[in-house]
Amino acid sequence: MKEVLRKVKDASRVTATLNGEIKRKILKEMAEALEQNSSLIINENKKDLKYANENNLSAALIDRLYLDEKRIGSMADALRDIATLKDPVGRVIDGWMLDNGLRIEKVKIPIGVIGIIYESRPNVTSDAAGLCFMSGNACILKGGKEAMYSNIAIINVLRDVLERNSLPKDAVSLLPDYSREGVYKLIQEDKYVDLIIPRGGEKLIKFVSENSKVPVVKHDKGLCHIYIHKDANIDEAVKISVNAKVQRPGVCNAVETLLVDESVKNEILPKLKAEMEKEGVELRGCEKTLEVIDINKATEEDWNTEYLDKILSIKVVRDLNEAIEHIQTYGSGHSDSIITENYSASEEFLNRVDSACVYVNASTRFTDGGEFGFGAEVGISTNKLHARGPMGIDDLTTYKYKIYGNGQIRE
Amino acid sequence: MKEVLRKVKDASRVTATLNGEIKRKILKEMAEALEQNSSLIINENKKDLKYANENNLSAALIDRLYLDEKRIGSMADALRDIATLKDPVGRVIDGWMLDNGLRIEKVKIPIGVIGIIYESRPNVTSDAAGLCFMSGNACILKGGKEAMYSNIAIINVLRDVLERNSLPKDAVSLLPDYSREGVYKLIQEDKYVDLIIPRGGEKLIKFVSENSKVPVVKHDKGLCHIYIHKDANIDEAVKISVNAKVQRPGVCNAVETLLVDESVKNEILPKLKAEMEKEGVELRGCEKTLEVIDINKATEEDWNTEYLDKILSIKVVRDLNEAIEHIQTYGSGHSDSIITENYSASEEFLNRVDSACVYVNASTRFTDGGEFGFGAEVGISTNKLHARGPMGIDDLTTYKYKIYGNGQIRE
Repeated sequence: MKEVLRKVKDASRVTATLNGEIKRKILKEMAEALEQNSSLIINENKKDLKYANENNLSAALIDRLYLDEKRIGSMADALRDIATLKDPVGRVIDGWMLDNGLRIEKVKIPIGVIGIIYESRPNVTSDAAGLCFMSGNACILKGGKEAMYSNIAIINVLRDVLERNSLPKDAVSLLPDYSREGVYKLIQEDKYVDLIIPRGGEKLIKFVSENSKVPVVKHDKGLCHIYIHKDANIDEAVKISVNAKVQRPGVCNAVETLLVDESVKNEILPKLKAEMEKEGVELRGCEKTLEVIDINKATEEDWNTEYLDKILSIKVVRDLNEAIEHIQTYGSGHSDSIITENYSASEEFLNRVDSACVYVNASTRFTDGGEFGFGAEVGISTNKLHARGPMGIDDLTTYKYKIYGNGQIRE
Repeated sequence: MKEVLRKVKDASRVTATLNGEIKRKILKEMAEALEQNSSLIINENKKDLKYANENNLSAALIDRLYLDEKRIGSMADALRDIATLKDPVGRVIDGWMLDNGLRIEKVKIPIGVIGIIYESRPNVTSDAAGLCFMSGNACILKGGKEAMYSNIAIINVLRDVLERNSLPKDAVSLLPDYSREGVYKLIQEDKYVDLIIPRGGEKLIKFVSENSKVPVVKHDKGLCHIYIHKDANIDEAVKISVNAKVQRPGVCNAVETLLVDESVKNEILPKLKAEMEKEGVELRGCEKTLEVIDINKATEEDWNTEYLDKILSIKVVRDLNEAIEHIQTYGSGHSDSIITENYSASEEFLNRVDSACVYVNASTRFTDGGEFGFGAEVGISTNKLHARGPMGIDDLTTYKYKIYGNGQIRE
């Protein structure tokens, strides 16, 4: 594996110096090559599907694996979209002159080699490769074993485009080892790999975080809250809460717990119950909630649970302070929203709640690279350092200082 | 320990919301309190010195431990300097409006709880506490066991000032456990600690990097190069090389290897030898160097060695490309400089050498927070992510997105 990673590192020194024009040209050629080779990719995909059927993998998993002309077209379009993004490399983010005449520039550069570990969807292979390439990085990708044939076919199409353009094909590489042991080896190689992004289940993320010597930017759980303040517009509060729960319940930016100010509980809880039940949401409430509406009782465990489903827990709180304390105790630092028309309450919530995204009067569902206008999304970071919240290709860069002198020495 | 860390975390929620005026006031009071309590601190320091003498610690270590009125005065002045820095918290670093009217602000905020692990100098205790406090963070400090009495005395003076101002004294805390096991426990607590900064020997940094679940910003080795290009101003090249080696040989930004372009070796090597020997520098050269000047022979190990001493290795290289390849192979990504009057060569060096600081025509010794104008220095990061190169208090912050809506839901 060391030999593979060494080649990816060498390739990263080349991709780091490519200008935007070349990178866009290559991405467009990669898109075209995917479409031209779609029957080849579909044939390889059939081998994965055969294995999946033989091993009784779930229908949902098989659907995620499945590729046809249309899905390959979408992969190609995603690469074309990435080719339209602003190149983050070379942007001067700060600069100043020292008294002695030294001129300092702080400049965005690629990170180097990015390892991305993901599961069954084969389209992640081309998306991740495209994002890394556009930001000047080389990548080493570890897809799921169940998508092995598809991933190899896809990556070879992309590598052929690089080779045809006299660029190192190793800039876009698959990890040759599909075992957990292979992942372990990869995340030890801090000499060759500069960043690991695990995208997948809780177990994978935990394993990578605990064992990696390479820095990790993880996409962990989202236990999001909406606090309905005493000065909330009640209809707006109901509308936003329903949207944040049901528009797509299985994602990390969906709301899991509603905090309702005591002074509006009688007014809002019956309305909420009616609207949520219309959408098939199961409600679980604290004792004070149960005094107003007849729903299931929430336990301590509910406050800690990311349901990722049409279930919502409701807690009545005394005031803003209790709401913030609840979020500090049970929240995951992802996305939390306050519904209020009160200026001071909104300011205090925005300042004191330490989450990647804090909202006033809006659904938590907007925490998303696409919604933020980043174009293609790398993921949503639950890290506090390097990148926080929605990640665009800008977050696949670091910086260096360029220092221009004319003979300066230190006295 | 969990209980101590929980208190520090709670305190961090208070420090995060303090405005600059209060933080500056507290820092100035802390400075005054250190001076007023100097005899108490000196008395406690005597216990550490007694232990050090009884245990035959080295004279250099005892000097680093030693405190008197003057040294305590310097510690106080350092806090006063920190109080003059620009508050990084609250700075809006980006902001835009979405089509749906959502207004997004990307705002600098404190990181939270910062763990700093260091060795004998007791002044680091007040410096680190001051830097963390000014940037809105709480800190948990782990000093050397040999400075235990001094550190406890210093920290208690600082904590008294916080308490007197009705602020949580746990914002500035010492780790109660001085063992390696204590460090191990600290770096597992990613629920309470947001960042670990190890400042110390290679063994400590390796231990922390390999075992920490908390993100680490490390200050690792600096194996710095100067490449003397064929179009260098020779006198300037000699002057810069001597400065980078001898002005302070024991630090990470001193040069360790000189790369000399083949076409200027006959002209420059004798001059270099004369000047370096005047300064008592031992030279070790590659075979081609030895053809020109009579010095010791360098081995493969020399290219990998951070001497931190008056020793310099010299290698003759064919061209810019070989110089860059040598730096990519042996460098530590810290600071590297090219001496040239050639525009294209300087551009290629600045772009291709992937170090935190890349120089043209200047000494590598300028890689330093003070020199960069950051005021007080947190350290020099050898990480590639979060913070790279000289770190000021700006690098003790992260960011959050504040999102202002008026009822937006996701369609």
